[in-house]
Amino acid sequence: MNIDTHFTVGEVDPASLHQSVVVVIDVVRATTTMTEALANGARGIYPTASTEEAVKLATSLGREDTLLCGERKGAKVEGFDLGNSPREFTGPTVSGKRLVMSTTNGTRAIVTGGEGERLVACAFTNLGAVAESLKDASSVAILCSGREDRFSLEDSLCAGLLIARLQGEYDVTPVLNDASRAALALADSLQPDRAFLSDTAAGRALIEIGLGDDLDICAHVDRHSIVPEMRDQAITLSKS
Amino acid sequence: MNIDTHFTVGEVDPASLHQSVVVVIDVVRATTTMTEALANGARGIYPTASTEEAVKLATSLGREDTLLCGERKGAKVEGFDLGNSPREFTGPTVSGKRLVMSTTNGTRAIVTGGEGERLVACAFTNLGAVAESLKDASSVAILCSGREDRFSLEDSLCAGLLIARLQGEYDVTPVLNDASRAALALADSLQPDRAFLSDTAAGRALIEIGLGDDLDICAHVDRHSIVPEMRDQAITLSKS
Repeated sequence: MNIDTHFTVGEVDPASLHQSVVVVIDVVRATTTMTEALANGARGIYPTASTEEAVKLATSLGREDTLLCGERKGAKVEGFDLGNSPREFTGPTVSGKRLVMSTTNGTRAIVTGGEGERLVACAFTNLGAVAESLKDASSVAILCSGREDRFSLEDSLCAGLLIARLQGEYDVTPVLNDASRAALALADSLQPDRAFLSDTAAGRALIEIGLGDDLDICAHVDRHSIVPEMRDQAITLSKS
Repeated sequence: MNIDTHFTVGEVDPASLHQSVVVVIDVVRATTTMTEALANGARGIYPTASTEEAVKLATSLGREDTLLCGERKGAKVEGFDLGNSPREFTGPTVSGKRLVMSTTNGTRAIVTGGEGERLVACAFTNLGAVAESLKDASSVAILCSGREDRFSLEDSLCAGLLIARLQGEYDVTPVLNDASRAALALADSLQPDRAFLSDTAAGRALIEIGLGDDLDICAHVDRHSIVPEMRDQAITLSKS
């Protein structure tokens, strides 16, 4: 198995992804929130790049069973039903609903990752389930969403923990690129918990706008055993 | 002391560098070669972006005491005096000479880094001397040259070892950005030696073109106690 990690979306040549299963990671918070929403019964998530596009799509899907979700600079977009806080995506709120979602960093990674053979979303909360779904892949590309196209420590640690799981729990001896080797080294020395997340750039920014409690869910390793997978413009529960 | 590491030049906002001492790292091989050349008596190094520019500058400086140096895809540029192999930059060859140098990755980092208050060049070979020269700085920006604007493991490890030196040998408790924290974690688990370099993307590419023996010098920690510093378009021995 080849595992190529990319610490920022800008480093990826989309054409290199065609034969790979792409794993998009945005721990704080897009992929954590997607996992939370699908685990709590949402029918599907429709990522969009702009808030305008989100409004248009929600209207065409039918507003009665569609929720408009998204953030800009971490805060809920005005007039939207939900922001990007995993705590908002409870069963009573999202069960049976379609979610149109526009986020700052996560969406770009999902668009680029769409060039892959498959695209799945990973966070600390579904690490084990994602590892299990990758165990037979011949080529994996891990895309860290990063923060405004810069390196982010929590996404890179998540990549490293995913590689460590594949090595530790399955019969996988992966060929790693430079960034995968670095990610694995991070998994050796850093622990994913709330204290760790609080001291990352993304965590500090979230605390600053009063949403620090989101980090409890973001740091909850293996909280769910589901894999969000992109199919036909929507992210739904993976069937494999 | 603030230490912000940037794993690729593309992640840097040049305007953010104005108040910082910028440390450019390109272990394989630009900053290793620069250190080697200055330690062996070269008068100064003039980095240029293109080979055409290099030829023009060498002519205007006077060809009798100027050497044209540079590589494309690792190999010496046709018609140039020297490539980018540190083994070529011996005392007998470079002492008293000006070197006009065009390299693939290193030059871009130097141009971007030129926005800083000072700019110094770092490799494994002059780690201790660079740490010493930074000990009183209030803001340091470490620019890893990377490989074709992608993450490179050896530059990142070098950044981590530099931060570890500052913490370990001087009375410095730095404030670290996400990438600096990751670099420091690498320094905990990886050793800079020839075996390590041979298994990086840059090392493998060098071995492929028959220049693997360069890695012995690249991996030689604290081989020299000098700091190359950019001043008036030329890199010379730092006086501080």
